[in-house]
Amino acid sequence: MDRLPILRLGDCLLVTIQVDLHDRLALTLQDDLTNAIARTGARGVLIDISALDIVDSYIGRVLGNIAAMSRVLDAETMIVGMQPAVAITLVELGVTWQHVRTALNVDQGMRRLRASIDGPRGRPEGGRDG
Amino acid sequence: MDRLPILRLGDCLLVTIQVDLHDRLALTLQDDLTNAIARTGARGVLIDISALDIVDSYIGRVLGNIAAMSRVLDAETMIVGMQPAVAITLVELGVTWQHVRTALNVDQGMRRLRASIDGPRGRPEGGRDG
Repeated sequence: MDRLPILRLGDCLLVTIQVDLHDRLALTLQDDLTNAIARTGARGVLIDISALDIVDSYIGRVLGNIAAMSRVLDAETMIVGMQPAVAITLVELGVTWQHVRTALNVDQGMRRLRASIDGPRGRPEGGRDG
Repeated sequence: MDRLPILRLGDCLLVTIQVDLHDRLALTLQDDLTNAIARTGARGVLIDISALDIVDSYIGRVLGNIAAMSRVLDAETMIVGMQPAVAITLVELGVTWQHVRTALNVDQGMRRLRASIDGPRGRPEGGRDG
């Protein structure tokens, strides 16, 4: 498997991680995802990790990096479906995610992401404030 | 990998197939998906196969079966992201899908599924016709 499919859903992108994120696959995902955000103008990224039983510090760091990159590209990242054991491991490993929000499942994550994107303040599109 | 994650998105279920559907995995998917439809009352099933380069007659049959089962459970199945080579193979293999609709990608598929579910006629929920 060379790359993970990135699914577009409205103005959000959805990635489901089902396999071990080895080094090259993780870097490919970074590249593909940042390119997809730039190409589609997506405002949100949903990463579903419900299929992962184990997350090591490497995957933790990669996911954090992806979130930081997405943020620079003006897209919010939501990681969903984390198993309790994975949450325990991440904290024990000392992985802190600065720019990552989490939700229990894709449905909740998508709703919150949409609410945040379409929020009352939103973002000035036309630069009227400038 | 024991099972494919089934993601709930509103009243639709989304499955992304990224790995080879060997026999047991396919049967597990059938079980999980039909159970998920019954449990959640989902009206639509989206199966993304954009990561599959090759589909053999077995996978073709399994996907057809899943669609037929979903239909019995009152959910419509949409298969999205099929690569052109896979379409060629399926026709050459003589696989005909009776109950399957297709779309180019998840975004289009989801929109059409929603339009079909929320259609002008809809479905009488409370059995007023009975």
